[in-house]
Amino acid sequence: MATIEPLREFVTRFTRLFDEHFTPDEIQTAGAGLLKTLVSRDDWLPEPYTRPHPERYSQYLLHCDPLERFSVVSFVWGPGQKTPLHDHRVWGLIGMLRGKESETQFIRREDGTFVKGETDFLEPGEVAFLAPGVNDYHLVANALADQTSISIHVYGANIGGVSRAVYDEASGVEKTFISGYSSDDVPNLWDRSRSRAA
Amino acid sequence: MATIEPLREFVTRFTRLFDEHFTPDEIQTAGAGLLKTLVSRDDWLPEPYTRPHPERYSQYLLHCDPLERFSVVSFVWGPGQKTPLHDHRVWGLIGMLRGKESETQFIRREDGTFVKGETDFLEPGEVAFLAPGVNDYHLVANALADQTSISIHVYGANIGGVSRAVYDEASGVEKTFISGYSSDDVPNLWDRSRSRAA
Ligand SMILES: [Fe+3]
Ligand SMILES: [Fe+3]
Ligand SMILES: [Mg+2]
Repeated sequence: MATIEPLREFVTRFTRLFDEHFTPDEIQTAGAGLLKTLVSRDDWLPEPYTRPHPERYSQYLLHCDPLERFSVVSFVWGPGQKTPLHDHRVWGLIGMLRGKESETQFIRREDGTFVKGETDFLEPGEVAFLAPGVNDYHLVANALADQTSISIHVYGANIGGVSRAVYDEASGVEKTFISGYSSDDVPNLWDRSRSRAA
Repeated sequence: MATIEPLREFVTRFTRLFDEHFTPDEIQTAGAGLLKTLVSRDDWLPEPYTRPHPERYSQYLLHCDPLERFSVVSFVWGPGQKTPLHDHRVWGLIGMLRGKESETQFIRREDGTFVKGETDFLEPGEVAFLAPGVNDYHLVANALADQTSISIHVYGANIGGVSRAVYDEASGVEKTFISGYSSDDVPNLWDRSRSRAA
């Protein structure tokens, strides 16, 4: 039986990081520890936020800070699904919850074209970092051909509202996009009556 | 077409009140002004959060502050539905959105029994106050026999998790309860891609 408590705890503790007058780097580092705890178990993500779409990957908002200082998203990959090459423009954390994800990093040349970097595989419980100016360009895919994979992403903004870009891998030609989110709802983290009940 | 923007704006501005080092009274007063603006129009509440239950009134969480300093709830009353006599134990605001609500206040005697006070009717756009120690006991009902009524409540805590009481009107006998919420989801306030699209 799923319990929302680990996600509620994560959101509360992540919010409190902003009271500590940390730099964005420090928030990302401290937040990575919280995310590692969150993805160390897989019994808390409500079922509506685990559903793959038949044609494209889904990004379900799980929580957005009311001052839009950070957001938490579940990425749900059906078999074979992947992103185009894209950037973020804010810090990011990727915590693997279920299945397996491949992340291919890209380095952008001065002329705007890309060189393909390493491909890394993420297993459940692992956390990866993204940072503008360091490693902001990547392509992410489900590494499993026959199974849904799910990762939990945290970003230093309301990522669904950030104007950023996808790129043509060969030419480097950039196209601006605002991703939005896959659902009109987010999970209710705050019903403590259910956790107190038997 | 419904737009979530007024609710997002309300949540952001209400959250910022806590940066001002206001007293709870000042938060309630300033918040009442924000709530009055929110219920001055009725085009923003998503349909799943307007649905009456056939047997009992519904309380849909619309937003809970991540530090649980305040919560926003839509109360949806089917024809004839009403609450028992109850208390809150934190400050509250009631903003009438749709239909008409009656609120009957009660004064508690020293021996624990109740005297019925005034009954007030709330019309769309109106805002009422609740405060522990002042007027914390009431019974609220749909004032319309043939129509759904909806009011937007704001409380100085995560109200669905507060341990409080319902009372037998005649004897004053009290029974502790934690209300919880009527849905496992809350509306996604943060998808700015839709408001930017045509
Ligand atoms: Fe990405
Ligand atoms: Fe009440
Ligand atoms: Mg009146």
